Amino acid sequence: MDVRNDLQAYVERQLPQYLPKSFHSRISDINLASTVNEAVRGSTIVQESGPENLSFKTQLWEQVEQYAPPGALFWTSTSGIPASLQNAKLKDKTRLLVVHPFNPPHILPLLEIVPSPDTSEWATQQTLAFWRARGREPILLSREITGFVAGRLAWALLREAIHLVDQKVVTVEQLDRILETSMGPRWAYAGPFKSFHTGGGPGGMAALFENVGGTVQKCWDEGGKVNVGDGWEQDVFRQVMEAYGQPSLRERDRANKSVLEAVEREKKRSDHGQPEVNFTNM
Amino acid sequence: MDVRNDLQAYVERQLPQYLPKSFHSRISDINLASTVNEAVRGSTIVQESGPENLSFKTQLWEQVEQYAPPGALFWTSTSGIPASLQNAKLKDKTRLLVVHPFNPPHILPLLEIVPSPDTSEWATQQTLAFWRARGREPILLSREITGFVAGRLAWALLREAIHLVDQKVVTVEQLDRILETSMGPRWAYAGPFKSFHTGGGPGGMAALFENVGGTVQKCWDEGGKVNVGDGWEQDVFRQVMEAYGQPSLRERDRANKSVLEAVEREKKRSDHGQPEVNFTNM
Repeated sequence: MDVRNDLQAYVERQLPQYLPKSFHSRISDINLASTVNEAVRGSTIVQESGPENLSFKTQLWEQVEQYAPPGALFWTSTSGIPASLQNAKLKDKTRLLVVHPFNPPHILPLLEIVPSPDTSEWATQQTLAFWRARGREPILLSREITGFVAGRLAWALLREAIHLVDQKVVTVEQLDRILETSMGPRWAYAGPFKSFHTGGGPGGMAALFENVGGTVQKCWDEGGKVNVGDGWEQDVFRQVMEAYGQPSLRERDRANKSVLEAVEREKKRSDHGQPEVNFTNM
Repeated sequence: MDVRNDLQAYVERQLPQYLPKSFHSRISDINLASTVNEAVRGSTIVQESGPENLSFKTQLWEQVEQYAPPGALFWTSTSGIPASLQNAKLKDKTRLLVVHPFNPPHILPLLEIVPSPDTSEWATQQTLAFWRARGREPILLSREITGFVAGRLAWALLREAIHLVDQKVVTVEQLDRILETSMGPRWAYAGPFKSFHTGGGPGGMAALFENVGGTVQKCWDEGGKVNVGDGWEQDVFRQVMEAYGQPSLRERDRANKSVLEAVEREKKRSDHGQPEVNFTNM
């Protein structure tokens, strides 16, 4: 029981800073459980965030199914193991699906929703509705894919970033500053397709590719093909540790939240009919 | 002279919205020129932003060198043609270098500074100092590379994005929303190395790769290898145009600016000695 008391004290100490004031009084409603039965009986949603290990997860879901009510949704926050593998030992495979948040999960709105081929439409729609009602951004992927979408995009960019640092074109800190002063602010407001479309002027993304398609293809052809374990790790991890040490989670959380609010505010602001700049009206 | 008058009127009409009030009175100081001689004589900096065409640029620089003072810096905003190719017809190759902004250039702080092997240290240092004094973020690349750094990173991510849309895992709009609600806000505050380092907890990026290295490598192995002209263009460009039509440049500019300000504000805010959350102190 000592561990449970320590954990309870930790939750009560740390959780308030992540929650709006109106939720603080409800923190004492949290029940910590030391058996699966105790944890999931009477539940409507079972959220699994255990170790990233397939046999752990299949065994856990088998137990959960024994004790959870038949109508409960089963969600996994895995960043890589699809529901179609995790459901191996379930009798009812229709209610398990991936609900993948993005770090820091209490701030960033994204949830990648990835049903298995066995997941029912009902379970998927209940999940989407739950998060939409809470102001989050659940995005339904049409099918399972390694790393889902956000991860694949981030790792693709990171591979090129590692290559450029490995080739000593820039340092780790320079590379981060490049993102922070260009694509970061840009993509916080408009993802890559909208951004490149806007950058192409009236002809949009098609016009952009007319102009720069050759350079783009050359970048793709010459792109870095580093692999995990290739040997870049030592220098890159050392540079990262020297540059950042122990970063402030509180500053990160505040900044991410503040960026999201800034974008929402500007999107809602009316232009009161002021004429738009139009580069074709000269 | 009609074109010149039209252009003058256009500049005087459009420029104020991009400049702080204190600069408005100086807009009338702008001189439009119709010959290279008129444009560059008496200059201290010559900024070239002409068509992305090598022979145009080499011929332009040859003319510029005839008329510009010997101490003037030569800057090119090319997104792909290195200074070492543009300088072919220059007698003095020491003062030409790439100063590559990021769209929208009047808002985003980044400038990639890319000297050729012939560029003098003096010209590079003058350029860095000029932009730093104006609150911009010039980043000096150690050598010339196709697409520079920001472009290579953006195109690497876009290649995977196109692949995922082409494979119908998500739509163009879903993919953009995924970026806007995850990596965008995250990278506006901390680039990929710092972000993944923070995400790894006390062990940093090394610990993160211990956990997810296998998934990362699988994403890299399975990553999309679309090429320009492969046929994805028709559907992707159509989806983009249907989703966004003519986007508002004013809203984009305001949002990008507001995001940058939000990050700066949060970085400057003091925590007044409040203890940091530390996941190892349980």
